[in-house]
Amino acid sequence: MAKENFVEQIADIETDFPRWYTDVVIKTKLVDYGPVKGTMVIRPYGYAIWENIQAELDKRFKATGHENAYFPLLIPMSFMTKEAEHVEGFAPEVAVVTHAGGEELSEPLAVRPTSETIIGHMYSKWVQSYRDLPVLMNQWCNVMRWEKTTRPFLRTSEFLWQEGHTVHATEEEAEEETQRMLGVYKDFAENCMAMPVICGLKTEKERFAGAVATYGMEAMMKDGKSLQAGTSHYLGQNFAKAFDIKFLDADGTQKYGYTTSWGVSTRLIGALIMTHGDARGLVLPPVLAPVQVVIIPIAYNKKPDVMTRCRELKDSLAARGIRVKLDDSDNSTGWKLNEWEMNGVPCRVELGPRDLESGKAVIFRRDTCTKDSYDLDGLEETIDGLMKTIQADMYTAAKKRMDERIIEADDLDGLLKGVDEGNFVRAGWCGDRACEDEVKDKCVATARIIDENHTAKTCVACGKAAKHTIFFARAY
Amino acid sequence: MAKENFVEQIADIETDFPRWYTDVVIKTKLVDYGPVKGTMVIRPYGYAIWENIQAELDKRFKATGHENAYFPLLIPMSFMTKEAEHVEGFAPEVAVVTHAGGEELSEPLAVRPTSETIIGHMYSKWVQSYRDLPVLMNQWCNVMRWEKTTRPFLRTSEFLWQEGHTVHATEEEAEEETQRMLGVYKDFAENCMAMPVICGLKTEKERFAGAVATYGMEAMMKDGKSLQAGTSHYLGQNFAKAFDIKFLDADGTQKYGYTTSWGVSTRLIGALIMTHGDARGLVLPPVLAPVQVVIIPIAYNKKPDVMTRCRELKDSLAARGIRVKLDDSDNSTGWKLNEWEMNGVPCRVELGPRDLESGKAVIFRRDTCTKDSYDLDGLEETIDGLMKTIQADMYTAAKKRMDERIIEADDLDGLLKGVDEGNFVRAGWCGDRACEDEVKDKCVATARIIDENHTAKTCVACGKAAKHTIFFARAY
Repeated sequence: MAKENFVEQIADIETDFPRWYTDVVIKTKLVDYGPVKGTMVIRPYGYAIWENIQAELDKRFKATGHENAYFPLLIPMSFMTKEAEHVEGFAPEVAVVTHAGGEELSEPLAVRPTSETIIGHMYSKWVQSYRDLPVLMNQWCNVMRWEKTTRPFLRTSEFLWQEGHTVHATEEEAEEETQRMLGVYKDFAENCMAMPVICGLKTEKERFAGAVATYGMEAMMKDGKSLQAGTSHYLGQNFAKAFDIKFLDADGTQKYGYTTSWGVSTRLIGALIMTHGDARGLVLPPVLAPVQVVIIPIAYNKKPDVMTRCRELKDSLAARGIRVKLDDSDNSTGWKLNEWEMNGVPCRVELGPRDLESGKAVIFRRDTCTKDSYDLDGLEETIDGLMKTIQADMYTAAKKRMDERIIEADDLDGLLKGVDEGNFVRAGWCGDRACEDEVKDKCVATARIIDENHTAKTCVACGKAAKHTIFFARAY
Repeated sequence: MAKENFVEQIADIETDFPRWYTDVVIKTKLVDYGPVKGTMVIRPYGYAIWENIQAELDKRFKATGHENAYFPLLIPMSFMTKEAEHVEGFAPEVAVVTHAGGEELSEPLAVRPTSETIIGHMYSKWVQSYRDLPVLMNQWCNVMRWEKTTRPFLRTSEFLWQEGHTVHATEEEAEEETQRMLGVYKDFAENCMAMPVICGLKTEKERFAGAVATYGMEAMMKDGKSLQAGTSHYLGQNFAKAFDIKFLDADGTQKYGYTTSWGVSTRLIGALIMTHGDARGLVLPPVLAPVQVVIIPIAYNKKPDVMTRCRELKDSLAARGIRVKLDDSDNSTGWKLNEWEMNGVPCRVELGPRDLESGKAVIFRRDTCTKDSYDLDGLEETIDGLMKTIQADMYTAAKKRMDERIIEADDLDGLLKGVDEGNFVRAGWCGDRACEDEVKDKCVATARIIDENHTAKTCVACGKAAKHTIFFARAY
């Protein structure tokens, strides 16, 4: 039975953003809930986005000299405790294998929440001389962090990610690597996700457990909240000392290496949805959209030429490397239009008998929800160009939205009002943890990034001289 | 300090094949042992082979209409017990998470040994109507089976694999799918791995736990043992009934679906090594080799032109899409030749001052260990052609080796002698489990594949009339 024209019920984006999000991810079949609480199943449409994310990132990792590898899922619990801050941060979230092969294990094993420890252990075996450095590796894998409150893509017990782990001979090289990978993430966010980001150092409170310095990439979601979209950590010699990663330097002395780690996860899919989505559902940027162009044949039963022309168009677009789909199902046209809009396909081509006669086709742009008529002749080039235009325009629009919602505040009242209204708030901070905590208590906002462009005079909490200017926001 | 010319100690392939294998995988840095017994770390050189395997297979899965998805790692133990044979087969090997987030879980969770159960559970939610069928999904992931005896790539507690899971409206379609995917594996084995295989039905004893029929792909390793390189299972309605995968058919009645599953794993890397490797180490087929061509500059310190020409050649080969490496390290030439031979790079180009003068370059083929001189002019085309020749010749050589070592036997003495000498033995079988067990007891050989070309007259064990002809072999 063909599906009739109906509007999928998605909650109102303006009044109930959290429900809108859940409705969108479930109804567009990006994801479903797994049987174990807090787990998700990434369905083909969601996984196809992840594959595109992986391809774009992997290309960049390899271009910067990194190689992929795979380290074991299970980590001896004793490894976790070797770096004091690390275990404090991760132990409460760890899932533990205690039995295997019908027996109780002599040592319980952690399901990796992140792999600094087990990779550190292996690096200590592999690194002997300065000639073995730098070590530049990455792995694509699943990790597990037992969370109390979960939401698909944003926070789940298990998620997919990549984690880069490097060792360097000097502090300078390791810091450079940390910055380089933050730059790779920024480039990816802006140019592939069409998502503007704010990058920079995190405060000590927000630092990765075991790091000397954590750099973050934050993005503004449509509700004005911030989402940490990626992090790059300079680990100093903390893990090198805990795991004995030592090398014989050119000067004949034994030295500890300097390590880094950096990661992004399937959380990026959540970021993509909440950066661009609208009342009708998903809006996907062409670079990452599983389907870039959908062709809808109109009234094709009456005129077989229509379907023939649609098929030709599909083939010629596919030949150009465009991810194209022809919806020749027997669903009603209204249902199809609605469905593909909800699914966020960047560009929809409608082709009917009248278009064919006039040598035109109607193209609907999902990002602007506008329709235009274009010559059928050369339509492939038009669409090629449109892909680039849509990608660029989506970034520009998102950047404008973010810029308009970055405000300044001098005191906690101003900060509270600012975040209440869905803004990022730039404000001064004296550097004391107590003031950072006060902001969190009174405004439910956290220090997202230290703004390099430090202009604030006084601390937003205590009024004393500001050491830093901070981007404060409510966060996912 | 530059490494001097020395021969890495690899055990003799003729007299100690198991040690040869371990030496090769460790010394070529394909893999290392993980800290937890039975686990492996796949190092960049090994992982690069896996990435090439993934790319070739994934292309074929998508071309046959499959989509990738991702299902959770942790499976409620109650799911495992829903299909009686399945739990019997897998329960003894399962690793179990009993604690997470600092608390004991109300239900223990299995780390997936395979995903029929959790995927069956999700499919029962997603499949409602015949219009939802077929469901054609695949996932790339890690799985865990707690094994007593382990060897890198061949049998490890954790390994990487792909598992396809499909649902169909009819028995015929599901059986067709089972065969189609076996065909995909065969095509991949022959054309990418240059590895001849024997494909067909497995006996009941060798069947996947819960399947109606298991089809396998077996390959002959250089020691004459068989390696199960891939399997494709027709699951009938076993899992559909256990997990309630039902659909409303076009005729208005509720029916159970028919499911299949199929998988290959990082075990294929072990198969690759043992199919082609030789006394000097790895021999990799061009399609899967991480480095297809290595360029060795000779005496380049005396003549800078040499390095310039080597760099040009590297760039022009890379531009053609060839995976090329220029070894400009300060290691000795002898060390380099040895190292890249051990690493199995299909094609080595040596270029020195004298070559440059005569407008020639020396090319060493790893598969035949032969050297030839070629014109520098047009060397790129020569190498392009050589890649195809080497790929084809490696298959032909392996096929010849296998064909010469398939013999026939009429009785257990003959079978024993056959497998002792490293052959696959074609022999009759009456169909009784007792006779299959007797072969295993007396000859340490198992029924690998039922030969479709049934010609044997009598059972190799009991002498009664043969129902089937079987390929018997010792197996990994």
